[in-house]
Amino acid sequence: MTRNLTPKGAATRQRIVEGAAAEIRERGIAATTLDDVRARTGTSKSQLFHYFPDGKEELLLAVARYEAGRVLIDQQPFLGDLTSWSAWHAWRDAVVARYRAQGQQCPLNVLVSQLGRNTAGAQAVVHELIRQWQSEIVVGIRHMQGIGEIDPELDADRTAAALIAGIQGGVTMMLSTGRLTHLEAALDVSIDNLRRAHGDR
Amino acid sequence: MTRNLTPKGAATRQRIVEGAAAEIRERGIAATTLDDVRARTGTSKSQLFHYFPDGKEELLLAVARYEAGRVLIDQQPFLGDLTSWSAWHAWRDAVVARYRAQGQQCPLNVLVSQLGRNTAGAQAVVHELIRQWQSEIVVGIRHMQGIGEIDPELDADRTAAALIAGIQGGVTMMLSTGRLTHLEAALDVSIDNLRRAHGDR
Repeated sequence: MTRNLTPKGAATRQRIVEGAAAEIRERGIAATTLDDVRARTGTSKSQLFHYFPDGKEELLLAVARYEAGRVLIDQQPFLGDLTSWSAWHAWRDAVVARYRAQGQQCPLNVLVSQLGRNTAGAQAVVHELIRQWQSEIVVGIRHMQGIGEIDPELDADRTAAALIAGIQGGVTMMLSTGRLTHLEAALDVSIDNLRRAHGDR
Repeated sequence: MTRNLTPKGAATRQRIVEGAAAEIRERGIAATTLDDVRARTGTSKSQLFHYFPDGKEELLLAVARYEAGRVLIDQQPFLGDLTSWSAWHAWRDAVVARYRAQGQQCPLNVLVSQLGRNTAGAQAVVHELIRQWQSEIVVGIRHMQGIGEIDPELDADRTAAALIAGIQGGVTMMLSTGRLTHLEAALDVSIDNLRRAHGDR
């Protein structure tokens, strides 16, 4: 819901969102106040309320959107170009590297669980993230079917849904256990199965 | 950490845990007080502190263990007897039915996220649940390999880890979206792939 902002206004708003995101990543959402965000981003109280008239919840939602966008950006250029098996494996490595680097901190997860499962805004952000992510994988599977590398009868939508569920669960388990075992297993088993689905029946 | 309790004491303790679990399922963890649990289970303050000397956190941990146990019990007798494809499909249906009936309430999830990812006790409960669940699936895969229904070269541990990740992610996504699509996709694609891994290479 970015209103009509001047380029300078849009840049200021973006600076506040990125500063808030960094603050939350470092200190946790509970410990982050609007004053911290103002101090970090060098903005006045009136500026903050100009860009986020509804206050902290509106800012958090903007941060959630920003972090959701980063989830996808961090997987590029691989996710948008799953046109060969080497691209699939490079994408797999990028996903694992992202979550290895991130460690126990998952800003999106923190924001979503804080904003609550019943906050329509936060749910919409998660929905849209999943939809985009899954549709990029579907495009990749269809491409591989087109060039004869995956069985054309395989259901691309259902397979992509299962793969996204595996990644989601692997990340959840990493947050609980600190280990990447399940995330790697979910990606590797899925890709192996796609490779096997190669006209071999 | 159940101390040496008489059978009557153990029964009272169990009644408190089950009452607290039901209260939390109905009202949410934030709204549940020790007084609510006492009222529901007809126990005195001194009884409650006799069985849970460390108070609410100790009771919550006992509830987490109880709910974790139910996750596995609800999948029986299928989970413990994955010895034919019809048993695998019956298990799949039991898992989906459990989460369909449960709806948006996932007591274990609530407890784990409330007790915090940094609470060693809650982490241990989750670890143990995952370990048991996964090892039952590994036993099932090895059985099917033994009777020639799954390729003997398939890595049972890694495949079971991927399957558990898919279920976990599917449940997480159901909690966000209210839909079972991803859970069903994760189970169906995994079982289809196991069935295809049938000496066909």
